Amino acid sequence: MYRLLLAICSVLFSSAVFAQEDSLFIRKLADEILVNGKAYTNLHTLTKSIGGRLSGSPQTYKAEQWGRQVLQDAGADKVYLQECKIPHWVRGGKDEAKLITGNKEIPLNVLALGNSVSTGAKGITAPVLLINSFDELEQRKNEVRGKIIFYNYKFNSKLVNTFRAYGDAVTYRAHGASRAAKYGAVAAIVRSMTHATNNFPHTGGMIYNDSFPKIPTLAVGLWDADKLVSAIQQNKNMRVFVRTNAHALPDTTGYNVIGELTGSVFPDQFITVGGHLDSWDPAEGAHDDGAGCVHSIEVLRALKAVGYRPRHTIRVVLFTDEENKGGGSSKYLEKAQNEKHVFALESDAGGFTPRGFRISLANEPLEKIRRWIPLMQEYGAYEFETGSGGADVDSLNIKLGIPVAELIPDSQRYFDYHHAANDVFENVNKRELELGAVNIAALIYLVDKYGL
Amino acid sequence: MYRLLLAICSVLFSSAVFAQEDSLFIRKLADEILVNGKAYTNLHTLTKSIGGRLSGSPQTYKAEQWGRQVLQDAGADKVYLQECKIPHWVRGGKDEAKLITGNKEIPLNVLALGNSVSTGAKGITAPVLLINSFDELEQRKNEVRGKIIFYNYKFNSKLVNTFRAYGDAVTYRAHGASRAAKYGAVAAIVRSMTHATNNFPHTGGMIYNDSFPKIPTLAVGLWDADKLVSAIQQNKNMRVFVRTNAHALPDTTGYNVIGELTGSVFPDQFITVGGHLDSWDPAEGAHDDGAGCVHSIEVLRALKAVGYRPRHTIRVVLFTDEENKGGGSSKYLEKAQNEKHVFALESDAGGFTPRGFRISLANEPLEKIRRWIPLMQEYGAYEFETGSGGADVDSLNIKLGIPVAELIPDSQRYFDYHHAANDVFENVNKRELELGAVNIAALIYLVDKYGL
Repeated sequence: MYRLLLAICSVLFSSAVFAQEDSLFIRKLADEILVNGKAYTNLHTLTKSIGGRLSGSPQTYKAEQWGRQVLQDAGADKVYLQECKIPHWVRGGKDEAKLITGNKEIPLNVLALGNSVSTGAKGITAPVLLINSFDELEQRKNEVRGKIIFYNYKFNSKLVNTFRAYGDAVTYRAHGASRAAKYGAVAAIVRSMTHATNNFPHTGGMIYNDSFPKIPTLAVGLWDADKLVSAIQQNKNMRVFVRTNAHALPDTTGYNVIGELTGSVFPDQFITVGGHLDSWDPAEGAHDDGAGCVHSIEVLRALKAVGYRPRHTIRVVLFTDEENKGGGSSKYLEKAQNEKHVFALESDAGGFTPRGFRISLANEPLEKIRRWIPLMQEYGAYEFETGSGGADVDSLNIKLGIPVAELIPDSQRYFDYHHAANDVFENVNKRELELGAVNIAALIYLVDKYGL
Repeated sequence: MYRLLLAICSVLFSSAVFAQEDSLFIRKLADEILVNGKAYTNLHTLTKSIGGRLSGSPQTYKAEQWGRQVLQDAGADKVYLQECKIPHWVRGGKDEAKLITGNKEIPLNVLALGNSVSTGAKGITAPVLLINSFDELEQRKNEVRGKIIFYNYKFNSKLVNTFRAYGDAVTYRAHGASRAAKYGAVAAIVRSMTHATNNFPHTGGMIYNDSFPKIPTLAVGLWDADKLVSAIQQNKNMRVFVRTNAHALPDTTGYNVIGELTGSVFPDQFITVGGHLDSWDPAEGAHDDGAGCVHSIEVLRALKAVGYRPRHTIRVVLFTDEENKGGGSSKYLEKAQNEKHVFALESDAGGFTPRGFRISLANEPLEKIRRWIPLMQEYGAYEFETGSGGADVDSLNIKLGIPVAELIPDSQRYFDYHHAANDVFENVNKRELELGAVNIAALIYLVDKYGL
């Protein structure tokens, strides 16, 4: 009995010591990031000196050089670039749309969607058909020919996590053009993927179905979407003019920017933490995904600054081309096939106050991870839910079975800025950004130390 | 054994039914607020049509009329005003400060603190003494006479909850002037109570100790605070000019605005939910505390809109004069002494995403309340901690033992705006504001139904 008690006490004691040691270490990481942090100034340079980083644009290459330098300054043992094939779609000037009512023309705030074809220099003028859902499109397919289809599917405001509303609505942005082209539409306009209270149009990727003609497709700001609805309700024969010079150039070369802190015990086993370096062009790509890039760099910098020697190699990856074709993540998957990976995390949901992580683990192993919550809750993360990782690391899980994760920041403001001209540095809060880095750094440390 | 099992099953079954009924009802409340909510448009009117609401200002009275009307529109059974004695301090024009270096004058962005006396029309020019803490003040008390004291005590960025950094630093704003006047200082300047990345000065209340001369006192923006520090470090004989026409007028009359949903079972037992209607003058008082006012009104509106008949009387109170002397809360305490109160909650920490509640309950009764977390976590609240309520309801607990609470929203951005010119409607996110109301409404419903 005495020995049993002794054994129990010793286990309790050592786990308490463990927990205290971890708690103190995470406090040290947090202090380093909250007091000496570079995430915010790094984001300032990325957004203000370089700006929007559309795949294949000159800024892509400036951002790669920036990433390389900042990783070196952060103390990486090794910094290198990984060559990738990336698309080179360009907007080709200012996108335009007008509502034509009698002899009055009312301009609409629009942006061509990524991958859209051009309207030609003269633009397209055609009657507009208001469609609220794909079901309605199917019911009214005989009315579609020769028309510009305006999809007015709204964000569902009842869904508290805004990513669910996005997941619900984004099929209209992705597939709306081809589904309308199937029935003879000449162009498509999509209500922006947002519930913002302003009129910024939100661009983003769209996908053509090769079985149907490629028609130009644009997003419209919410105020103008509502204006369109009310104009169409008043006059069924309302016409709309759209013009975009968007077009694809030949594929080109881009680079994943990689920086490593070499593992002291398992130098050939990798823990990846990343964000994507590219962004859409109307904005500075501050939340999407400058935040994820500077989060990841800050994790490496802070671990190094507090003198931590990781057991595994911590690898920061700034992925190229997340927004268009995923050229960066495909190439990284190829590399990972010949390596041993422990874990991969992407931060691609903005620089807002962290709430937790989504991790590709079943309930039982996730329960183990949830025991870390008391260590992190003070800094924001209280929720570890099962699910996919960030877009650039997901295939590591799907194809190679590597556990992946994504930071879950508070979601309420993300779609106010996502892919729109107001995704700028000024809309990022310094401390919210830093707390994201604190929580990621804590998780990376715990995974490095205890495994998954 | 069979009867025991039956009893257990029946308890489990009925508690499950309860939980489901509550869950469905809270979903209904949330849908009402997220889809048909009036909190955001109400806040727009309050901030944009009325504006800053300094105690005793003309806007105070406009806001009272607005509150009365909005509570009626929200469906209150009874709306009335409660007369209070309130202070009437005025800024009296633009506050000024300049750093005088040789024959160059560098303007500093300042705001007189609430309750400060005037410098007189000519202002005060005097050598400035940089003081980093009260300890340093005591050590250097012989150097203070005839000087302007500049308190440069900083927000501690290691404290994750920013209210703790505020609690740590705010004594310099509250007591700095008198502590310096004790040793002969002629004026005081205080580093603004914020860790914002801009230069807005943040005003707020200060308190004179009647044993010492009243000297003028102002807050300076952080950039200019840093500019002052570096100028003083370069030249110990640096002089500063300050001018403010701030002064107190005779006390006047203001009103708490009260709206009630009458209880169906206990009409004479009250559950209070409130915010304060007054604000500082350089701003629109959007987060502080327009948000709390529209939260409270929205709780009443939503409960009524979904057809809920409360057991107790739900009383919305828009308190007057929280910022200066607490004239509204004193008067409400008088009223409450002759009534039976079940619970009182104030929302006065901004319209940010809710994280939980602080409640004046000991651990054991708080554990009971924590069982409600699964009902609310979906909407944001996951943390119920023990502590004080909002400033206007705290005395109900201290003097009368009534349980009180405050909504805890995410704290990171609060002190970016607090008492500064950028506390405007544009810095409030619609959904974050609405989710605050959802969580308060859910808690009020649960307290009304199950008690505390």
